Formats: sequence, structure tokens, C-alpha cells
Amino acid sequence: MDDLQREVAERLDWLGEFGKDPKGGVSRLLYSKEWTEAQHALKAWIEQEGLEAQFDEIGNLFGVLKGKDTGETVLTGSHVDTVINGGRYDGAYGIVAGILALKYLKEKYGQPLRNIEVVSMAEEEGSRFPYTFWGSKNIVGLAKREDVENIRDFEGTSFVEAMKSSGFDFRDESKEARKDIKAFVEVHVEQGSVLETEKKSVGVVHSIVGQRRFTVEVVGEANHAGTTPMGYRKDAVYAASQMIFELIKMAREVGDPLVTTVGKIEVQPNIVNVVPGKAIFTIDVRHTDKEAIVSFTDQITAKINEVSKEHGVEAAIDMWMDADPVPMDPQVVELIEKQCKENGLNYKLMHSGAGHDSQIFAPHVPTAMLFVPSLKGISHNPAEYTEPEDLAEGVKGLIGALYELGYK
Amino acid sequence: MDDLQREVAERLDWLGEFGKDPKGGVSRLLYSKEWTEAQHALKAWIEQEGLEAQFDEIGNLFGVLKGKDTGETVLTGSHVDTVINGGRYDGAYGIVAGILALKYLKEKYGQPLRNIEVVSMAEEEGSRFPYTFWGSKNIVGLAKREDVENIRDFEGTSFVEAMKSSGFDFRDESKEARKDIKAFVEVHVEQGSVLETEKKSVGVVHSIVGQRRFTVEVVGEANHAGTTPMGYRKDAVYAASQMIFELIKMAREVGDPLVTTVGKIEVQPNIVNVVPGKAIFTIDVRHTDKEAIVSFTDQITAKINEVSKEHGVEAAIDMWMDADPVPMDPQVVELIEKQCKENGLNYKLMHSGAGHDSQIFAPHVPTAMLFVPSLKGISHNPAEYTEPEDLAEGVKGLIGALYELGYK
Repeated sequence: MDDLQREVAERLDWLGEFGKDPKGGVSRLLYSKEWTEAQHALKAWIEQEGLEAQFDEIGNLFGVLKGKDTGETVLTGSHVDTVINGGRYDGAYGIVAGILALKYLKEKYGQPLRNIEVVSMAEEEGSRFPYTFWGSKNIVGLAKREDVENIRDFEGTSFVEAMKSSGFDFRDESKEARKDIKAFVEVHVEQGSVLETEKKSVGVVHSIVGQRRFTVEVVGEANHAGTTPMGYRKDAVYAASQMIFELIKMAREVGDPLVTTVGKIEVQPNIVNVVPGKAIFTIDVRHTDKEAIVSFTDQITAKINEVSKEHGVEAAIDMWMDADPVPMDPQVVELIEKQCKENGLNYKLMHSGAGHDSQIFAPHVPTAMLFVPSLKGISHNPAEYTEPEDLAEGVKGLIGALYELGYK
Repeated sequence: MDDLQREVAERLDWLGEFGKDPKGGVSRLLYSKEWTEAQHALKAWIEQEGLEAQFDEIGNLFGVLKGKDTGETVLTGSHVDTVINGGRYDGAYGIVAGILALKYLKEKYGQPLRNIEVVSMAEEEGSRFPYTFWGSKNIVGLAKREDVENIRDFEGTSFVEAMKSSGFDFRDESKEARKDIKAFVEVHVEQGSVLETEKKSVGVVHSIVGQRRFTVEVVGEANHAGTTPMGYRKDAVYAASQMIFELIKMAREVGDPLVTTVGKIEVQPNIVNVVPGKAIFTIDVRHTDKEAIVSFTDQITAKINEVSKEHGVEAAIDMWMDADPVPMDPQVVELIEKQCKENGLNYKLMHSGAGHDSQIFAPHVPTAMLFVPSLKGISHNPAEYTEPEDLAEGVKGLIGALYELGYK
């Protein structure tokens, strides 16, 4: 194992101790004691590396390698919070990779042309409070005081109370968001198994999928399972099973990059000897192209209506999430790909099927992402793991990208 | 409304007051205060009608119209217990119909040739303790002390404690079961919508269906809904939806009297953005013919195995109930049908898709059943209802049957 492999793996182990959960994995929720300790420990590490470190008002931590022209900044980093019983890589890896990249660039190339900054963002997961991307949304000026003023965690602690007791506060919304960020590059674990399956060490992400989420409520008639002949039934599960089967089959026929998931099913009354009167299921549709999402939505809506007519049941389709795909910046993607090629990295151009802080940055600044493999695609789980070889390759990819963006 | 209609409807209202539940319907659980009061009130009513009444050891209540030959008995009746928040007809109607039939026979025809007895059986539903048919199983000598000695209700009260505090005890198992019962005729609400749909007032039941119940556990692989391409998935819900759809379709193709129900589905982890790793569902198969049940079981087992192979998932099928169909006695059925015809009743020969005390009696004594319609097939529900006209027709059918069996 070379030095970089050892260093990145050890730093991830170290960071994973903050919020290490006796029930497994890491639980490092926004503004918790563990979260606060992690951010301060990261600040100390950044300073040890001879870089300037400071928090913004809400608790995003920045470390900067000052450039000759301090009016322009190249930013990298990811989020420091985790889900409950999450892994040691999701988010954390992007921060560790960023600090190590800055350290390496400083040692090898000295002062850059532009500022190169690493950020340990406060929050992305939405695992403590019902609000996601608190960190990145504050950096680009999207987050508002009113969004979080009245929300509480599962123990009843208010967002504001938690923030203040952690030593932070709202940003001054009358001030404009930072204009100096010229590019953002995030490295992250894939949280899928494409890289592992295709035996690649690095993914260069060209876009983040858009998603639509639906709840479908199928209403038939609850009846006695013994005394109701088949011809008399309006069996909600029979209708729903056909809908689910057909719509997943359709998604498979459309093929990559479309993915469609029925993750949740609830049957009422859900008793072995009662013909179900109601079946409720969710649909999650993702694709990198908005038109493809719209067209597939039309197809599955038509199919659900057709099946419900056939069965004589009612089906109500409620779309409760509609997020557009977010393309990464083509120039930054091209530049990253070029240097991956030059440095002999075993990479793949790919999309992200999961959401990331990069989707918040992308509409505001040129943004791109790098992925490293996730063992068996496992994420948000104590078993999350990436081989040290791949962790190091990701850092190398980031170093190359930041050099291109910051020194040229 | 004629006198009989009024009388039967009023008596059902009266009996429905015992255990009337503030949350709706009737909750009259075995050996509860309400149950005990109901049995004693029924005893008083039977005695008011000039009939002898007595309890057996476990709390079955018998009323007898003594015959000239007291060595032979024709028995009618049903169970006095209800499910939680049940209706006023299920079980209760068979008791009220029996008492009114005895009263009418006595008034009109005097002393019969054989004893004609009505029974208000202690328990059929299994709603308080995990044991069903406690009443009828004691009459035919099937119930054993050891079956219930260690069971408790949902509040932790033991069966034995409940029985004793209600004033009853185990029967003497060293004594033989009664040998004097020459026939058993039970009237009951249909709990289905066949009679209502076909506009019939009375059903003459020729058999009670057999049932098999299964739990099918489909195991695939849980994955991230965004980052796992369709081709990489082992989606337990996709496989299960095809199984459920196909097996219900097959049941519809086989047609009456086969019924098949998937009443319960559980998905794991049941989260909108996770490809489900596990789907568990139940199957309830019923038919009047054992061979048809066996053959359909073979077909659906083959189909489930075929689908799981196709999808690359594992499916484990567990059969946890296998009850044979119970034919009613052909001679008693014929006799009842004959007198329905003679008395101009609007009847239909049919099977029962639900279980009844009659299936416990049938292997021991010649047994048959009469049904009356259930509004919209609703049962085990406060909305359970039968028109007084139909209630009266059912009593007339019973009177005719008991006259044939007891006076000739």
C-alpha cells in the first residue's frame, strides 16, 4: 500500500470515530455533539497542514490554499453529516480527499494561481431535521431562515436551538452569496455497483438524474376471502400486482439510464383471509433526461389507468416529487476526463443515480463530480466500504482536476 | 312486516345489546362478562318459552323440546361469541332462529317424536384465545383440556381462569360424547354476496370448502433505487408482483368454486428509494373438492418457482394450513331442499366458502346448513345486516327441516 492509500484510509477511520454508533456505523447528525467535534477536529487538521481554516455563520468549514489572485476560488469538498447508522465514506470521503489534495498540491506545486478551497459542509442527508442540503444551499444563498425556523428533530429539539447550542447561527440573508467560486468539484463514493461491476476505479460524472416520485392508491372492495367468488371481486392487490409488474417490465424495456422502483407497498386491511380493499404503492422514476422522465411518466400513468379500468377499481396517482436532472458542466467534465486519461486512471464516464450537494452548486457555478467504487453498491449502512487503492485513485483524480482548474 | 319477521329482528337487536361495543358493533368474547350475561339471558328466554334449558360443563347452553322418544335428538343452533367489533347476526342468528323454531313447532305441532334441541354454543371465532370451535368441539368430544390449558388472551388472562370466573369448567373427558344426536342443522348468515346478487332468500348448503394457506417469502437483493441499473437488480417486489398477478389470473381462469386470495403483503425494507430485498405474501386457496385444491396448489407452486427462476430470486413456499372440504349429509340436504320447494321458499343450493360449527359436527352426525343473505356480503363488521324478510324465510326453512327430522 503506498503512502496516499494509507493516509486516506487512516483519515477516514479517524473521522469515522466522531459519531461512531454502538449500534453500528456512524451517526453524525447536524449540530449534534459528535458533529460539532468532527468539524472542530477537521479545522485543527486543516490548520496543521498549514492552511487557513474558518467556519461560515451556519457551520460550513472552509480550508483555503491561498492563490495569487484571491478573487477566484476553486472549491472542493462534501458533507460531514451522515444518516443514522451510516457508513464512514459517504460525504466524509469528499472532505478527506479535498484536504489531502490541498496538502499535496501545496507541497508539490506551491502557491496556485487561484484560491483552492476545501469545504466540510454542514448537512446534506436530512437525517436529523426534515430539510436537506442545508450546507450547500447556504453557500449558494438558497437556504432561508423561514425554511427551518419551525422544524424539530425526532426528539423535539428545534433546528434553531440545535444550531445555536452548537455555536452557529443564521447567515445574514441581506448579504449576497459568494461570487468568487469559479468551479466546484465533489468526490464521493458511488453508492451503486456500476464501477465495481465494470472494474473501474474512478467515475467521471456528467449528470445527476432527475427524479419523480409517486404514490398510487388503488381502491377496490374488501371482501371475505372464502365467500366471494372471483367474478364478484374488486381485488385491489390483483390490480396493483398487475400495475407493478407491467410498469417495472416497461422500465426494463426502456433500459439505461432509466430506473424505476416500487419500494413501498401497503395493503389494507392486510389480513390473510380478506380480499384487499386497498393497495398503496410508491414509484420512483429516475433518468438523466427530463423528457425521458416525462414520457415514461405518461406511459406508466396510461398503463395504471388501463389496468384499473380492466379491473373495475379506482387508481389515484399522486406525484409528490419532481426534480429535474442536473447536468454537470461540460467543460469541467471534459477537463477532468482529459487529465484522468493523461494520468492513466482507470475511469468511466457515467451519471449519478443519487442526489449530491453538486446538484445544488451546478445551477450557480461550473460543477463536476468524481466517483469511486462502493463495495457491492452498499451505502447508508455500516458495511459501506471502498478499497484503499480506489480511495487513492479518487484523490489523484481530484488533485489532477484542481491542478488544471487552480494552477492554469 | 309479519309477526315472525318482527320477532326475529327484535330478538337479534336484543341479543346484540350484550357486548354492544362503544367502538361499533358487538364484541362478545368467550367467557367475558358480556358473554356470560348473554348466555344467562338466553337461558331465561328459553325457559320463558316453556322449554327446559341447561348448560353443559364448559358453557354450551341447550334448550330442549322433549320428544316421545327421548333417546334421539335433532339439534340446531350456532355460536354466541362474536369477533371484536363484529355484527349482530353472525352466530346469533342461528341461536335466535333455533329458539323461535322450537317455540313455533311446540305451539303448532305439540310434542315431537324425537327431542328437538337448540344450542347456543360457547365459542367458534377464536377471537379471544388462539383456539377455535371450542363449543362444537366439546359437544362431539374433540376438545381436550391440554389444548387450552396454557393459552392466554391478549391481556394475559389464562383460558382456565376466564372459564372458571365465568362459572364453567372442563368437561369430564373420561365420559363418552353424546350419542343421541341424530342430525345437526345450523342456520347462519352467508357472509358473502351470492344470495343477494342472485336475489335468493335462502341457501341450502351442500358442502363447506377446504382451505390451504401459504406464506411465500421472495428473497432478492436490496439496492439503492437510483444507482442500481435495472439489469443489476434482484427486485423482490418485481418478482412477487408477477407471481401474485399470475396466480390470481390462474384462479380466475379455473373459476367457481375455486377462490384464491393474496390478502397480506409485506415488503422489506419498504422504503420508497430502496429496491426491495424481500417480499412476503400470503395465499388463501379454497374449493369444495380436495383434489381441485391439491391440483391448484401444484399449479401455483410450479408458477412461483418458474417466476423466481426467471427473476434470479429465491422463493420459499410454506403451507401452514391444510383443511379438507367438509361435505354436508346428502340425505339431510335433500330433505331440506324438498321442504324448501314444498313451502315455496326462494332458495339456492350452494357451498359455504367460510368455516362453521357444522364442519365440526359433520364427520360425527348427519349435518346440513341453511344460509340467509348478507347485505353486500359484509360480515365480522358492525355493518353486518340481513333484511327481516330474509331472516324470517331462514327461520321458516329451519322449522320445515326440524319438522321433517323431528316429527316423522
